[in-house]
Amino acid sequence: MGLWGRGAPPVSAGAVAAGALSFLLLAGPARADEGMWTFDAFPAEKVRQAYGFAPDAAWLDHVRLSSVRLAGGCSAAFVSGQGLVQTNHHCARHCIQQLSTAEHNTVENGFYAATAGEERRCPDMEANQLTRITDVTDRIRRAIQGRSGAALAAALKAAEAEVARDCASGNENLRCDVVELYHGGAYHLYRYRRLLDVRLVFAPEDKIAFFGGDPDNFEFPRYDLDVSYLRVYGPDGRPLDTRQSYLSYAAADAAEGELVFTSGNPGHTDRLATVAELEFMRDVSLPRQLLFLAEMRGILLQMSAGGGEAERIARDRLFGLENSYKARLGQFQALVDPTLIESKRRDETMLRARVAERDDLQRRYGGAWDAIAAAMPVWRRLYDRFQVLEAGRGLQGDLFAHARLLLRYGAEQAKPDGERLPEFTAANFPGTRHRLLAAAPVYPELERVLLRASLTYLRRVLGPDDPLVRRVFGGRTAEQVADAAVAGSRLGDPAVRRRLLEGGPAVIAAADDPMLALARLVDAEARAVRQAYEDTVEAVRRQNATAIAQARFALYGTSVYPDATFSPRLSYGTVAGWQEPESGRRVAPFTTMGGAYERATGAFPFALPQSWLEARGRIDPATRFNMATTNDIIGGNSGSPVVNRQGEVVGLIFDGNIHSLGGDFGYDAAVNRAVAVSVGALREALAKIYGAGRLVRELDEK
Amino acid sequence: MGLWGRGAPPVSAGAVAAGALSFLLLAGPARADEGMWTFDAFPAEKVRQAYGFAPDAAWLDHVRLSSVRLAGGCSAAFVSGQGLVQTNHHCARHCIQQLSTAEHNTVENGFYAATAGEERRCPDMEANQLTRITDVTDRIRRAIQGRSGAALAAALKAAEAEVARDCASGNENLRCDVVELYHGGAYHLYRYRRLLDVRLVFAPEDKIAFFGGDPDNFEFPRYDLDVSYLRVYGPDGRPLDTRQSYLSYAAADAAEGELVFTSGNPGHTDRLATVAELEFMRDVSLPRQLLFLAEMRGILLQMSAGGGEAERIARDRLFGLENSYKARLGQFQALVDPTLIESKRRDETMLRARVAERDDLQRRYGGAWDAIAAAMPVWRRLYDRFQVLEAGRGLQGDLFAHARLLLRYGAEQAKPDGERLPEFTAANFPGTRHRLLAAAPVYPELERVLLRASLTYLRRVLGPDDPLVRRVFGGRTAEQVADAAVAGSRLGDPAVRRRLLEGGPAVIAAADDPMLALARLVDAEARAVRQAYEDTVEAVRRQNATAIAQARFALYGTSVYPDATFSPRLSYGTVAGWQEPESGRRVAPFTTMGGAYERATGAFPFALPQSWLEARGRIDPATRFNMATTNDIIGGNSGSPVVNRQGEVVGLIFDGNIHSLGGDFGYDAAVNRAVAVSVGALREALAKIYGAGRLVRELDEK
Repeated sequence: MGLWGRGAPPVSAGAVAAGALSFLLLAGPARADEGMWTFDAFPAEKVRQAYGFAPDAAWLDHVRLSSVRLAGGCSAAFVSGQGLVQTNHHCARHCIQQLSTAEHNTVENGFYAATAGEERRCPDMEANQLTRITDVTDRIRRAIQGRSGAALAAALKAAEAEVARDCASGNENLRCDVVELYHGGAYHLYRYRRLLDVRLVFAPEDKIAFFGGDPDNFEFPRYDLDVSYLRVYGPDGRPLDTRQSYLSYAAADAAEGELVFTSGNPGHTDRLATVAELEFMRDVSLPRQLLFLAEMRGILLQMSAGGGEAERIARDRLFGLENSYKARLGQFQALVDPTLIESKRRDETMLRARVAERDDLQRRYGGAWDAIAAAMPVWRRLYDRFQVLEAGRGLQGDLFAHARLLLRYGAEQAKPDGERLPEFTAANFPGTRHRLLAAAPVYPELERVLLRASLTYLRRVLGPDDPLVRRVFGGRTAEQVADAAVAGSRLGDPAVRRRLLEGGPAVIAAADDPMLALARLVDAEARAVRQAYEDTVEAVRRQNATAIAQARFALYGTSVYPDATFSPRLSYGTVAGWQEPESGRRVAPFTTMGGAYERATGAFPFALPQSWLEARGRIDPATRFNMATTNDIIGGNSGSPVVNRQGEVVGLIFDGNIHSLGGDFGYDAAVNRAVAVSVGALREALAKIYGAGRLVRELDEK
Repeated sequence: MGLWGRGAPPVSAGAVAAGALSFLLLAGPARADEGMWTFDAFPAEKVRQAYGFAPDAAWLDHVRLSSVRLAGGCSAAFVSGQGLVQTNHHCARHCIQQLSTAEHNTVENGFYAATAGEERRCPDMEANQLTRITDVTDRIRRAIQGRSGAALAAALKAAEAEVARDCASGNENLRCDVVELYHGGAYHLYRYRRLLDVRLVFAPEDKIAFFGGDPDNFEFPRYDLDVSYLRVYGPDGRPLDTRQSYLSYAAADAAEGELVFTSGNPGHTDRLATVAELEFMRDVSLPRQLLFLAEMRGILLQMSAGGGEAERIARDRLFGLENSYKARLGQFQALVDPTLIESKRRDETMLRARVAERDDLQRRYGGAWDAIAAAMPVWRRLYDRFQVLEAGRGLQGDLFAHARLLLRYGAEQAKPDGERLPEFTAANFPGTRHRLLAAAPVYPELERVLLRASLTYLRRVLGPDDPLVRRVFGGRTAEQVADAAVAGSRLGDPAVRRRLLEGGPAVIAAADDPMLALARLVDAEARAVRQAYEDTVEAVRRQNATAIAQARFALYGTSVYPDATFSPRLSYGTVAGWQEPESGRRVAPFTTMGGAYERATGAFPFALPQSWLEARGRIDPATRFNMATTNDIIGGNSGSPVVNRQGEVVGLIFDGNIHSLGGDFGYDAAVNRAVAVSVGALREALAKIYGAGRLVRELDEK
């Protein structure tokens, strides 16, 4: 699968030796089925030439409006006229876990609302429907004209906040994001409907949703029913009317070789990154992140070994963590493969040479690569401090996150909108507040374990003599600090958080909650390192990445697609297997439901749920279960519908193969594959295994 | 500290930005205080020129014979005529832990034998005293002449076994090692007395032996009493007579700037490695190893969080693991610092250019670098399988290790000596048997945790469809496989192991112990991957490293010292602080015992033991406690005596500073420092804190 959130772009674990990779994108336009295209710049002609069909404007509008972004980092689609949403089980897993209790374990046993009244609200889910795209490049560019460094960062932040504020104009049911395409080569305003009442309708048992577990994650052949159905309700408390914007289920599975499209929100790619940035990832950020994740994984594995409620709680956290780990390990492996970095280096050299050939380009953009390279040592010096103080590695847990949000809300609210941290601007705060006030459970034991481990990490990274470390520890052990803060905090209660938030800055400042006290202790330093990063690293990268993007426009026009930014994109491809580069083995594009029974051993993670065992005689074992396609996707695309020429659902993306993990840096048509549940298996399972008649009828209504 | 065993060479965590490093060694002779010199090639004249003093042959012989190697991976010295040995607490920690029980926690409370009768035998310690060095280069070279690849590996193994066998000629009280110097540039035969009866005399509490814990490890200023005293007994059961070969304690501490020597067994360095080998470490071996260690660290941290006996058991394992982790992280950091690898690349280019200038050298040695580089992709493909099946990552725990030794003993015993795995040759088996039969405790809970985690790792690395993984798992979970093997095994009982070993191959083959069964299941594949590694990677590296060494000899003679090989070496330097490259801060070379009280917070790992708190009024706070010196040391040197011109003990090496962690790759005189306990603090603590009168009197006997 791939929690595939914004924070977790996937990558290559075994893809290392994948042979001749084609990363010419950096220097030239996209080829083959490559590309995560914006809906307003889809290369229809190119697709027509290759496949004899291209979507027209109506097709594109319909698919865009039928697509859903889940703000936590996933994709989805409306699949009925009554607001029914199809996404992955792993995209709703956080909600499923939140609704789960020791008595009613919805993760293990699954969930089905046999009646509308049984549908259960997900505490902190936010769904978005993209209704309009506007090019605001000129407006933004005027606002930042001639600035650099900290001044550029401040002006850009203010301009983006203003554009977003104007767009939403106080309507919290709208969400307006300024999307930086091509790293600032263009700025587009994406206006979404913000949908906060999302309810769980159906989820299978996690044994089949994630059959094969971590070992099979990012692998194929695969046998996963990684689906869940949600329903979006409107502000009036009734199912959203989506009769004009939903995708029907196709009557049949897609055939091998058939043209298919995926609509979703790829989270992040680094395909346009410079070699200096890739080397930074290889040498600094990915290793540090992997080591942190590995240690946390060990802690959670051992926490879960005791069984019982602790196991249930630890396993949910492990689920996302193991996925991030495997994805990032793949990225790292791709970068230490000499062929990739050398190919990137060649491409960069070629692009720079073409820029240098034209005086005007050279004068304006020629220095951009060296400027980015010069920012990397600065970033290296800030990196650890930034990660532990501001990016969460040193202060883990929901309680601390709540405390920080409350504390900062107090301070940020007093500032002009354009100067606030992005999560507190008028345009963004409704989503932030939704998450802060959500009635999601907080588990003290998990909070203690996470905070202990991360405080130990904080001290390890900053050193015991760092004045901030001394203040935080105050002569105590990490365990004592964490246990006191968790045991004494009342922030696990949503009512307490609401009271503080609504009380405003003075009430928050006066509150003596120990987790708030911890957040206060580190806040000045955390903000300082964030500011230093934004002014001396991010601003430099952004300014010069924009220059490189403009050089590319000048040389190639818009035949290059922008890096992924967790905004809606469309990609095209075909249903296809592949040939393993090392072994020469052919991998077929389909598996069958019967294959799941053959692969099952009965032992986790290869155990089928009881419902499947009982239904074995009822289902058609030849039903196509999972399929591989050439669509260019990445983390964030989880839950994307796979649609055919008619715009009908033929599948549900839930993963990429192992070779797709290198997709952060480039697309290799020979081996890069998306992995989806085929539509026939969705129908077969709902009808014959789960007896979900209400759902099947709704899906088949025309 | 630095468990500093052979497996754990130290490195650079903060040393990354250490400024201009000097690694000219690769191309030219050693400079400044650099070098880990063999006793038979000590650069006396160079030292005389620099310091106006040089050790003569008698001095060298006396220090060599007074030095002790601890076979587990440490150094030590005789410090009385009655076999008394001084080493680090962390070098004896394994023994201290083995003697520890839930009731008598010798790790926490320390140990002191107030009478000779109370001295307690360490279950599996082996001490070695180097009595003779013989150059056997010609003999070995004749045996391997003209061979390469697998044939070379086999011939070399046979020749080394033969030389060692001839040397020991059946006497198990001798240990004969063929030491490959300069990666095969020379072969020396080191004959040691093998001393197996080693008893614990004194150990302080681990709170002061390792004051500051992991955060202060590899840091300075420092406040550690990292000492223990052991006594070697002869085969007659009486203290070994060492009146002719021990080092007396000096009357006074060494002064700042004073010339001092360290005698010890540096474990492993990569100073002569090629750039291709360094890149392999940076991209493959170090990241994999670090990730494995990080996950195990998390598991053990969480295991220890529950307190009680599980905490005691987990902590001991964590101790060595955290040390390896910090050391290897430092190595990794040094390698991702572009200055180091670029400097190595320049040096290699220069050396290759000088070789190319001379036709004879070019013809014989010119291809060596490319040959090594070509072996690296081969090693990459084998690496994971080798690590999980043969190097322990996939099958952790003492029970499995015992099972494998027994199983292989059965098979290896039947072969000619020269064809056996090295641990089973006539020369080496006495040490192997000593460890196998030692009455050391085995903790089932720890065994389960380690085996569960490593089996999960095994499956992750090889994939669930690997036939071997399928055989090992047999449709069960990792937990089920591990729990069954641990619960059913009787190999934790030394008497059972002895019975099997003495029963011989047929008895071992017939035994139905489940851990033996697990070892049988993987043995053919484990041996196969080891063989493949030795024939296609190690043989190529060795053959070509030898060629490079010969090229160096031809150009520079023996003014270059060999890489460390866990054999006795002498290094020289002075007591000296340093200046921090980034901050410019001066670090003084001494700390005081009073400083420990100032640094203590009362909370782990900054809590002093009760004995120190009570003795505060009795000790002189100005007593010099720890000191920094410029001696070039590395992991394995732990426990090395620091001696003055008179050959008297002025200190006890227990660590290097953070900059020394890059020492695996080169020595930087400006910042690379060894860290030792000063002799005055040893006396002061024994006399005034521990009331160890018997020991003080013995140390001061002349």
